[in-house]
Amino acid sequence: MNARLASSRDNIDDLAERLLNGQRAALARGITLVESKKPAHREQAEALLTKVMGATGNAFRIGVTGVPGVGKSTTIDTFGSNLTAAGHKVAVLAVDPSSTRTGGSILGDKTRMAQLAVDRNAYIRPSPSAGTLGGVAAKTRESMLLCEAAGFDVILVETVGIGQSETTVAQMVDFFLVLMLPGAGDELQGIKKGVLEIADLIAVNKAEGDGLIRARSAASEYRAALNILAPRSKYWSPPVLTISGLANEGLEDLWGQLGIFKERMQASGDWESKRAEQQLAWMWGLLNEKLQTALKANPEIKAALPDVEGAVKSGNLPATAAASKLASLFGI
Amino acid sequence: MNARLASSRDNIDDLAERLLNGQRAALARGITLVESKKPAHREQAEALLTKVMGATGNAFRIGVTGVPGVGKSTTIDTFGSNLTAAGHKVAVLAVDPSSTRTGGSILGDKTRMAQLAVDRNAYIRPSPSAGTLGGVAAKTRESMLLCEAAGFDVILVETVGIGQSETTVAQMVDFFLVLMLPGAGDELQGIKKGVLEIADLIAVNKAEGDGLIRARSAASEYRAALNILAPRSKYWSPPVLTISGLANEGLEDLWGQLGIFKERMQASGDWESKRAEQQLAWMWGLLNEKLQTALKANPEIKAALPDVEGAVKSGNLPATAAASKLASLFGI
Repeated sequence: MNARLASSRDNIDDLAERLLNGQRAALARGITLVESKKPAHREQAEALLTKVMGATGNAFRIGVTGVPGVGKSTTIDTFGSNLTAAGHKVAVLAVDPSSTRTGGSILGDKTRMAQLAVDRNAYIRPSPSAGTLGGVAAKTRESMLLCEAAGFDVILVETVGIGQSETTVAQMVDFFLVLMLPGAGDELQGIKKGVLEIADLIAVNKAEGDGLIRARSAASEYRAALNILAPRSKYWSPPVLTISGLANEGLEDLWGQLGIFKERMQASGDWESKRAEQQLAWMWGLLNEKLQTALKANPEIKAALPDVEGAVKSGNLPATAAASKLASLFGI
Repeated sequence: MNARLASSRDNIDDLAERLLNGQRAALARGITLVESKKPAHREQAEALLTKVMGATGNAFRIGVTGVPGVGKSTTIDTFGSNLTAAGHKVAVLAVDPSSTRTGGSILGDKTRMAQLAVDRNAYIRPSPSAGTLGGVAAKTRESMLLCEAAGFDVILVETVGIGQSETTVAQMVDFFLVLMLPGAGDELQGIKKGVLEIADLIAVNKAEGDGLIRARSAASEYRAALNILAPRSKYWSPPVLTISGLANEGLEDLWGQLGIFKERMQASGDWESKRAEQQLAWMWGLLNEKLQTALKANPEIKAALPDVEGAVKSGNLPATAAASKLASLFGI
C-alpha cells in the first residue's frame, strides 16, 4: 500500500467516526464524496458507506411529492419542525433531476424552509445534479444512508414529480406521501399516471380558511378514486387526509398515520422485506447500468449500433436477430 | 457450408415462400420453430423472421384483457367473426404464462371460440408455454410477425392478466382493449393496478337483458375514474363503451373507435413512432436478458452471489459496493 492510499484510508476512518458521532461537517463532507464524479472520491464514498452500514436503517424513510404550488416546502418545514420539537432528528433530501447545483439553489432550499434551516436537529440537502434520474437517485439513496449513520431518524425525500421521479423515490422509501391541492371535479383531472398507485397516503393541503370546504370535497373524490384501485398491501389501505402546512393543522394526524403504518408493516414483516427487496433491486439496477455502459463502450457495438437500431426501428430487422447480433459482437 | 446447413437454408427459403403465400401449414410450422427451445430451431426461426420482415407490420395489433368470466372468448369469437365477414383476416394469439401446452389446451382454445375455429380467414394459436412471461411474450411477438407475413391484417393478442402480462402485451400492440364486467360501486373495487392506465378503450361486456342497466352504470363509473387520470396521448382519450359479445351488440361501434384511433395515430405519426419504440425496447430487453444470463453463468459471480445478495439484503453491504464488486468479477 502506498502512502497516499494509506492516508486516504486513515481519512475515511476518521471521517466515518466523526460522522457516526453526528458531526454535521462530517456528514456534509461524506455527502460531497457521495455526490462527486471523481473516481477517487467514488472509491472513498464506497469505503465510507461500507464502514457505516451497520449504523444505517434506523430512520423512517418518507417520500414526499406534489405538484409545484401544492405547498411542499411549507408543509415539510412545519411537519419537520413539529418532529424536531418532539425530539426527532430530521433530514430533508431531494431528488430533482432538473436541478442545477449552484450556490443559489442551495440558498433556495434553505430559505424555502425557514424554520428547519436554522434548526440544529434538522439537516437540509438540496438535490444532487447529476443528469440522469438514476444518477441523482443513487446519490440521494447513499446520502440517506449517511444521514441515518449520523443519527437522523426521520428522512424526508422530496421530489418534484418530473418523469419517473416519484416511482424512483417510492422505491427508496418506506412510505410515500402525496400532497394534493384542494379542488374538485374537473380540477382533479390530470393526476399524473401512477401517482395514486404508489401513494401510501394522500394529504390534501391548504385545508385552511376558505379552502377548507374545497379540500374536504377533494379528499372525498380521492377516496372514491382510491377505492377503485386494489390496495397494494393487505395491511394498509391508503388514507386521505386534509392538512394545512401553513396553519400546522392535521400534521399530528399525519404523523399518527405514519406510526400506524410502521407498526403494521413491522408486525407483518413487510417493513424489512420491502427494504431488502429495495436494496437488492437497487444493486441489480446498478449492475445493469454498468453492463449497459460496458456494452455501449465496446468498439464493435459502437460501430454497429446505429445501423442495427435503424433497421429494428424501421421494421427491417427482427428485434431477436438484432439482440443476437449485438450479443455475439460483445462476446456473450 | 456443409450439406446440412445448406439444406436447412433451402428449407427456410421454401418455408418463407409458402408462408408469404398465406399457407396455414407453413404459418403453423413457422410458429412451431419460433416456439421451439432447440438452438437449431432458434436459428431457423431467426432466419425465417429476417426473411419475411419486409412483409410484416401491416396488421392492426390489438391487445385484449379482462378477468376470467368477463367473456373474453365469446367476445373475441363474435368480434373476430364480424371482421372476417367484412373481409379481414384475423389471427388470435395468447399470452398466458400459466398455460401448459397440451393437446387439451389447444383444443380448449379452439372450442371456446367455436365460430372462429372453423373460419378459413381466422387463425387461432394458444399461448406458448415457456415459463417466464418474457419468454412467452417474445414468442408471441414473433408469432405475430409471422401472422402478418402470412397476410393476417387484424391480430388479437389475448391475455389473462396474471402478474405483469397486461403491461407486456400493451407493449407489443397498437391498441389495448380492456373488457370489464358490469356492476357498480363496490363491485368496481379492486381493479388491477395500472390496468386503467394502459387501456385505450374500456368495454363493459354483458350489456344484454337484465345486465344492460348495470353495464351502463358501470360504464359511467369507469368514465369518472378515467377522467381523473391524465390521458397518455393528446390525440386520444380512452372511451368507455357497453357491449355484448354474446348478443353481438356494440361491436360495430368498438371497431369504429379502433378505426378512429388508427386514423388519428397515423396522422400524428404516433402510430409509427410507437411501433419503432416498441421494437427498440424489445431489442434492448432481449439484450439485457442475454447479459443477465451471461453474468449469472459466470463461475466467479455464481460463487460470490449468495453472500453478496445476503449482505445487501441484510443492510450490511451498500448496493453500490456490491454492484462494483460483481462488475469487477465479471471483468467490466
